[in-house]
Amino acid sequence: MESNDQHSDASSDKRKKMSCGLYFDAPKNLKEAIEMSINFGYHFLVTQLTHPSLVEDFDGPDAAHVIGRTDRILKAVEWNRLILGELSTSTDVDSEDIEIQKSSRATLEQELGFASHLGLPAILIYLTKPKNIQLARIINERLVLGLQLAVWVQIPIVHVSRENPMGESEHDTWDWWNDFRTYCDYDKRLRLVLEMPSIKNCPTSEELDRWIGEPVKALFLRTSQFLKNQFGKPVLPKSYQNIIQRFMALDVQYIIYSDTEDSDLGSYSKYINFLGKKLYFCNNMADFIEGCEDYLQNPLQPLTEHLESTVYEVFERDATKYINYENAVLRLLKHWKEPREPVIMVVGAGRGPLVQAVLDVSKTLDLKCKVYAIEKNPYAMNTLVHRNKYEWDSQVTLVKTDMRSWEAPELADVLVSELLGSFGDNELSPECLDGAQKFLNPKTGVSIPSQYTSFIAPIQSTKIFNEIRDNRMPDKTLKQSYETPYVVHLNNFYQLAPPEALFVFDHPNFTDCPDNKRYKSIRFPPISKAAVLTGFAGFFETVLLDEGSEEGSKVMLSTNPETHTPDMVSWFPIVFSLAVPVQLKAGDVVRVSFWREENFEKVWYEWCLESPCRTPIMNVNGRSYSLKKK
Amino acid sequence: MESNDQHSDASSDKRKKMSCGLYFDAPKNLKEAIEMSINFGYHFLVTQLTHPSLVEDFDGPDAAHVIGRTDRILKAVEWNRLILGELSTSTDVDSEDIEIQKSSRATLEQELGFASHLGLPAILIYLTKPKNIQLARIINERLVLGLQLAVWVQIPIVHVSRENPMGESEHDTWDWWNDFRTYCDYDKRLRLVLEMPSIKNCPTSEELDRWIGEPVKALFLRTSQFLKNQFGKPVLPKSYQNIIQRFMALDVQYIIYSDTEDSDLGSYSKYINFLGKKLYFCNNMADFIEGCEDYLQNPLQPLTEHLESTVYEVFERDATKYINYENAVLRLLKHWKEPREPVIMVVGAGRGPLVQAVLDVSKTLDLKCKVYAIEKNPYAMNTLVHRNKYEWDSQVTLVKTDMRSWEAPELADVLVSELLGSFGDNELSPECLDGAQKFLNPKTGVSIPSQYTSFIAPIQSTKIFNEIRDNRMPDKTLKQSYETPYVVHLNNFYQLAPPEALFVFDHPNFTDCPDNKRYKSIRFPPISKAAVLTGFAGFFETVLLDEGSEEGSKVMLSTNPETHTPDMVSWFPIVFSLAVPVQLKAGDVVRVSFWREENFEKVWYEWCLESPCRTPIMNVNGRSYSLKKK
Repeated sequence: MESNDQHSDASSDKRKKMSCGLYFDAPKNLKEAIEMSINFGYHFLVTQLTHPSLVEDFDGPDAAHVIGRTDRILKAVEWNRLILGELSTSTDVDSEDIEIQKSSRATLEQELGFASHLGLPAILIYLTKPKNIQLARIINERLVLGLQLAVWVQIPIVHVSRENPMGESEHDTWDWWNDFRTYCDYDKRLRLVLEMPSIKNCPTSEELDRWIGEPVKALFLRTSQFLKNQFGKPVLPKSYQNIIQRFMALDVQYIIYSDTEDSDLGSYSKYINFLGKKLYFCNNMADFIEGCEDYLQNPLQPLTEHLESTVYEVFERDATKYINYENAVLRLLKHWKEPREPVIMVVGAGRGPLVQAVLDVSKTLDLKCKVYAIEKNPYAMNTLVHRNKYEWDSQVTLVKTDMRSWEAPELADVLVSELLGSFGDNELSPECLDGAQKFLNPKTGVSIPSQYTSFIAPIQSTKIFNEIRDNRMPDKTLKQSYETPYVVHLNNFYQLAPPEALFVFDHPNFTDCPDNKRYKSIRFPPISKAAVLTGFAGFFETVLLDEGSEEGSKVMLSTNPETHTPDMVSWFPIVFSLAVPVQLKAGDVVRVSFWREENFEKVWYEWCLESPCRTPIMNVNGRSYSLKKK
Repeated sequence: MESNDQHSDASSDKRKKMSCGLYFDAPKNLKEAIEMSINFGYHFLVTQLTHPSLVEDFDGPDAAHVIGRTDRILKAVEWNRLILGELSTSTDVDSEDIEIQKSSRATLEQELGFASHLGLPAILIYLTKPKNIQLARIINERLVLGLQLAVWVQIPIVHVSRENPMGESEHDTWDWWNDFRTYCDYDKRLRLVLEMPSIKNCPTSEELDRWIGEPVKALFLRTSQFLKNQFGKPVLPKSYQNIIQRFMALDVQYIIYSDTEDSDLGSYSKYINFLGKKLYFCNNMADFIEGCEDYLQNPLQPLTEHLESTVYEVFERDATKYINYENAVLRLLKHWKEPREPVIMVVGAGRGPLVQAVLDVSKTLDLKCKVYAIEKNPYAMNTLVHRNKYEWDSQVTLVKTDMRSWEAPELADVLVSELLGSFGDNELSPECLDGAQKFLNPKTGVSIPSQYTSFIAPIQSTKIFNEIRDNRMPDKTLKQSYETPYVVHLNNFYQLAPPEALFVFDHPNFTDCPDNKRYKSIRFPPISKAAVLTGFAGFFETVLLDEGSEEGSKVMLSTNPETHTPDMVSWFPIVFSLAVPVQLKAGDVVRVSFWREENFEKVWYEWCLESPCRTPIMNVNGRSYSLKKK
């Protein structure tokens, strides 16, 4: 249910826009109920789609045709924006009693039709027990037939037994949801509404992790779950605030259910709005990524396609990254002892950020350097020419060529490059630097970076899985879409195990015939609770400069969440998907094989699952995705 | 090039938002030129992408790599929003001289690459002679390879010979454009910029018609084409204002080129903005259709799919339509002489607008009527039940059934229905009324409507052609998309001949076996000038009530442009497309065959061109589109 209010406060003061709905029990006058809710600061109203009280006024032959309210009490645009329709809670299509099953199904189907007729944005259903397979079939049939509205599925975060409310729950409600959405083929129109648990049952942060990987649309809060502050106003206990803070990343909405005598319902929406400011954590990263959450990008092909101005501009905005590069160059040149000028070649210079870093070091150390900038993109070269004349006093030697084919006039002491992609080697840095090292001093030459390692971690993200399924390129089949890795800022996901190191590349690599093919099988530790494996997230760590084995002797950049370079905004993770989600039980071991393959014209990855089940090998021979060498 | 200004004035005062660009000849400082243009009230700037003056400062080895300005003078977002890049006017890839051809091609390709690098929204090229086939090949190649930017193609509206500027033009510049875009397969990224003609060459309104069917993006105006008013401010002659008024329907932009000494360039953009208010013609229709121009809608399938609340709401908003219905009922019942109450059955009552019309007439005439409302949609019936109780004093007999299968308890004197689609019979009104007439009094019974006739007209609209090609449903092939008729508010189109009557249906139709199959071949008058036939627009006229042959004895509704019911907003035209646009010469005769076919389960149309060339018959056996009877 989208908020009406188009105005974004994000730019003026840092806060999360919170959208609240009010649960309203069968109001006689819906129009008035809406007006009241809006006056109370709510954005939508949750109420029954049909209800006995709505038909009781009718008799005679017409009465048989009454379903619910007349659609004419609201405009179509109001039904569509303001009303979340709750389906009858008295039906049970999964009842053991055939008669109850049949009458429930008739009611449910009529209500689904009525919701479509009214043009509601969403309906609300409840899962109250483990088995909901009949309900899943009916909902799934509507989804496949093209249901226009979203289905919000409400469950308690933590199940509490009626018989033994204080005891340990015998159910994991995640299983109820997982069964249901699996039957419905992970349809993205299915969204979760989570009931806030009792205060003593609050899940741990780790237990929340898995829910963060689910399509949670709203949190359901009772007014009885609020405390009163010294002014008699509602506030939430800290443990609830912590839960809300976690879910804010998913832009969830809030449904307030009044189960107390408090008539000042506006104070609850006001408080939730206040939390949007109080709990919002904003950093450099948050600004940078806003709007790209879970958005699929194709990895760059910088060897065969010229990067565009806007891409360079985004690169250059990451100050942290270039400070680390500058630091690496500084630490290296600090020890320069030779009487001659060091020769520094920036290969793949782009619009010159690394050239600038080298020149800054040269100035800092008061050490004159011979600087080359090698760049094959004629349009970036045009920029370098301007910078060389107006900013660099023409001291840089510009060479417009592919570094792999350049015949350099002298040997370099240092090769500086930034050819890494989200997976480290996935923009062909190994192949480019192998080609460039022929003009690097074979005895003393140093490459910055000197090493990089890719990392992978198994993830659950039906969001990404659906993005791949629904937003495929027109020229790709569904199979090809799953076999393509995507660069994506992961948000609505659950990481099932810590990342493990995959492939390592060192530079320079003065072997006779550098081999950049790789293979590795990785076994992750047993997972702690049931989950759905949808693919793997890829990261990298790079050693820009390695000055020995002691602490702090390395200048690093990392996108591995465990060692992420603070404040660095470049490089979102890369995602390798599976063609079909794999259901995992607690204790299951995920084992995966990854290959880096190449032939004369391209490089590609293949991957498959070995455990807990085997899958066909993905992207065979780079059929769906590869990196062109030329 | 989209305007920056997100604020729409449309709601506050009725006006067209005008977007102006300023042509700026090779400014030394682009940043300053932009600031000046914005201060002058312009939304974008048109300037050369490369220019000799931009490279003259460079020497030495770097000079060879200079292409144009450095991309770093503007942010990517500024390049992307503010700059329309003019390509070199000194190149000629269509030169007879091979050397000129080759060097021109190298320059052109470099400029195209540079424009992509900068991330410009569009480039500007000129067609200055009839033959541009080499230029078309190069541009088309880029388009097919996925060019991200738009290509604005500038031509004079009216060609003026340099040798004989006062004489009759020997060229129709539309031919230059038509050849060019045909080679480029009608790509929608190609847009037209039309140069305002000299005042004595202004085209007639009829000559402008064809341009209105083209993807015109901007009008190009020289400051010398403006007059000065009594305050020394620029104004345009009436004949130019007339041209601008015509193109306002296409939301064109304006490029101002300064070829006079006037330094107050702001006065020109200000005047154009003023025209946005002065020339804007706003009526009931304009409000209703805003935002749906040239947007494809699938025709309704009301027999097999329940209409939704929002659809009924849109129907009911058309007061003119129901006033005409009410008038028809009134004129009919005015003559009621029998002692008993007339029996009036509204078949397909929906949410009751025709029931209301009948009850209003009953009240006006103080004639008690027996009113039935027959409706098969249970959700519309729910609404009728509410209206019957709360608005109609329970005097209406509601029957929830399909009119074709109802066993009526008595015979009707009048059947009132509104089952017509954009093409008249295309929502199966004939089949439904044939079914319903079994409960119409066979001697004196009247059907409102009593007759309807579909009309077709040949049209040129590459806009619609591209919409069909690019926005097809995921479950339809391209062929199926072309074979599907669409309901669309035609805006960017050119009607090649007046509509001709196609199929006629009369009700009641008490023959033994009503036959609603139809066939007709229509020959349109020779067309006046060369054009591109992309399909046919369909309309209808209906006689609600026919009281004789004298003037004014018929109550009509019409969507035929020649007889359109004033102020009626219901029913956009329907479009039947061709699979391939057909090039027409002046004098060509368009002849088309249309069929209405049916079998036990469905009704469909087939169509094909007979002249000036034959085409395969479209939608054979309703393979791509049909109307389900059940």
